[in-house]
Amino acid sequence: MSLWMNSNIFWASRTERAKIFHAMDSDTAYMRLAIKEAEKGLGRTSPNPCVGAVIVRDDQVIGQGYHRRAGTPHAEVNAIADALEETHSCAGATIYVTLEPCNHTGRTPPCTQAILTAGFSRVVIGMADPNPVASGGAYFLQYQGIEVKLGVLEQECRQLNYPFLKHSVTGLPWVVMKAGVSLDGKISRRQGQGGAITGSASKQRVHELRNQLDAILIGNGTALIDDPSLTTRLEQKDGRDPLRVILDSQLRLSPDARMLTQQSSAATWIFCDQHASARKQKDLEQVGASIHRVEREQDGGLALAEILHRLGKADITSVLVEGGAAVHGSFLKKKLVNQVYLFTAPYFIGEQGTSLFSGYSIGEEETPLSLQEQTTETVGRDILIQGLLY
Amino acid sequence: MSLWMNSNIFWASRTERAKIFHAMDSDTAYMRLAIKEAEKGLGRTSPNPCVGAVIVRDDQVIGQGYHRRAGTPHAEVNAIADALEETHSCAGATIYVTLEPCNHTGRTPPCTQAILTAGFSRVVIGMADPNPVASGGAYFLQYQGIEVKLGVLEQECRQLNYPFLKHSVTGLPWVVMKAGVSLDGKISRRQGQGGAITGSASKQRVHELRNQLDAILIGNGTALIDDPSLTTRLEQKDGRDPLRVILDSQLRLSPDARMLTQQSSAATWIFCDQHASARKQKDLEQVGASIHRVEREQDGGLALAEILHRLGKADITSVLVEGGAAVHGSFLKKKLVNQVYLFTAPYFIGEQGTSLFSGYSIGEEETPLSLQEQTTETVGRDILIQGLLY
Repeated sequence: MSLWMNSNIFWASRTERAKIFHAMDSDTAYMRLAIKEAEKGLGRTSPNPCVGAVIVRDDQVIGQGYHRRAGTPHAEVNAIADALEETHSCAGATIYVTLEPCNHTGRTPPCTQAILTAGFSRVVIGMADPNPVASGGAYFLQYQGIEVKLGVLEQECRQLNYPFLKHSVTGLPWVVMKAGVSLDGKISRRQGQGGAITGSASKQRVHELRNQLDAILIGNGTALIDDPSLTTRLEQKDGRDPLRVILDSQLRLSPDARMLTQQSSAATWIFCDQHASARKQKDLEQVGASIHRVEREQDGGLALAEILHRLGKADITSVLVEGGAAVHGSFLKKKLVNQVYLFTAPYFIGEQGTSLFSGYSIGEEETPLSLQEQTTETVGRDILIQGLLY
Repeated sequence: MSLWMNSNIFWASRTERAKIFHAMDSDTAYMRLAIKEAEKGLGRTSPNPCVGAVIVRDDQVIGQGYHRRAGTPHAEVNAIADALEETHSCAGATIYVTLEPCNHTGRTPPCTQAILTAGFSRVVIGMADPNPVASGGAYFLQYQGIEVKLGVLEQECRQLNYPFLKHSVTGLPWVVMKAGVSLDGKISRRQGQGGAITGSASKQRVHELRNQLDAILIGNGTALIDDPSLTTRLEQKDGRDPLRVILDSQLRLSPDARMLTQQSSAATWIFCDQHASARKQKDLEQVGASIHRVEREQDGGLALAEILHRLGKADITSVLVEGGAAVHGSFLKKKLVNQVYLFTAPYFIGEQGTSLFSGYSIGEEETPLSLQEQTTETVGRDILIQGLLY
């Protein structure tokens, strides 16, 4: 319903209108603060969502908090504790929270109860919780006589939690395809050759992505050519290494590979087919890798849907797919990509370069699936094109 | 020289500083107006530059004008005439002009003389004229006792006249490569298949480019597959068709091709090799095409440098190269591209699509030539990446 339909704002007196507009503006402003809070938990709360909360009374922020890690208190509880350090009660205050307060007892008691006990008179919620187990909080609070407003900066609140939203509903991780390409869409200068296409600013952005997502996935071609470490290396702050996932049907990866011999807090999972050598499996397991066998599909590739299913079961809510061309091609072909990060370097490579995809082609008459909510951004000398596929 | 080095502004009194800053600000503002004037002539002044002029006295614009077409009065003269309609003299006024006033008698008398006669006390110039025959105006005026300031918004003034600047110095046209690609750098879904990749807003931008540049050039592959009209079709206003240039070594183009049978004010030039059939030449000439024979180079392609030389001799100051892949590849390989317009559609085509370039590849160890002054812009659902190659 539009604003026009929804309220009598255009018939209200000037003073009333000023009040309504002020409330709209300040709700948005405080929700933006709550989002800033939530962002502090990015990449640390999985499989839980990132949530931020801000408590306001008489146009003054009296408390704020965010969810830090699964198993620790939720954002609302942290914000209330923060407020109670300053003031003796939250009575009559408004709490802004980016995600609907949970209404169930999980590893922590329900937040709706904490909100009720604290005596808030108003709750402003960014977006509803899609998780059927935890949802219902908004309805419960309203039923208890608290004023509830839902859907403030909903889009921005959703963007905080793509992985959680997908994983909590489908059990599958959110899939982000990332590639560094030249202006003519090539990911390397020559077939089978490694080396970075994009610049150092883009590299730093990739490390930020790794820091925020639960797993990183590559094919064995990339693993063998680049011998990458697949760790998170941030300039400014400590990173957290994502789970490393390698698609390696025949277990060609060497136990001496950098990712297996380096220091890293994260594990390495290798997916292979049912016929891969047991001896190789043992060698790789001896250096700490876990080996997971899956079926091959008709086109010869490993069953990606099954791989995502297993990752989701292990509470991996997001996967950064970093290529190469065959991996990107198979994910796109099977329509498993949710989000795209395309770092585009400002030069041409030409026909001998490796194209972004192998094994994928749009049908001759097919309507192409366009990037949605596409954004463009300059990252150093490169251009980052980002968007969703659905 | 930096501002710091150049003036004593940081040692000046507060009032003096305010005056200096006001003059800097207003010089920039008026030059921006002069640029707006100049833009009215875009695509119409060739082989002359686009030039705009604005006349200011006591912080009031009293006249403005631009160069409309080669052989007609220059911008300064039009602006002076405009001012004299309003006021009896330009004495003591400042004239802002995007390009150094000419100091020679060409098809019109020298503008420096008109400026001197009109009694201006100050001349602010965007950029110096690189043309050795016409230049020297700034020096002449200064010598005559007029205050001259050179280099205000120089970069913007240069952008108005890339074609003129290159052509007047080298005799060669400015080469703009334009392509519509998918996110993965493909210009068609299948080899040898036509059809647009980008959306209607991009198409409109291409027509604006055609309207502003002197010639449009394609290879015979594109000519045969798409049978394009290569005319300028603008939604809002009348366009001017550019000269059509087809690279067609063996004269495979049919005399029934749309570009030869349609109504258009522009001519079609076809470049072929020395062995192309004389009978085909006659057939094509009969429908109005001009046939130009050039040598082939070692790689089998027509001698592009020679083609550009001949176009430049015919006062073609700019060429829009629209492909296909082989044409783009050969222009890039021979380092003949000055500017790139890459319209990027928000979807992937995959490995069966035609790559942007054929016949060009960067060397394995070569330092890539990056786009300079790169800009990114949303055009409808597409992204336009633009930049210079030098």
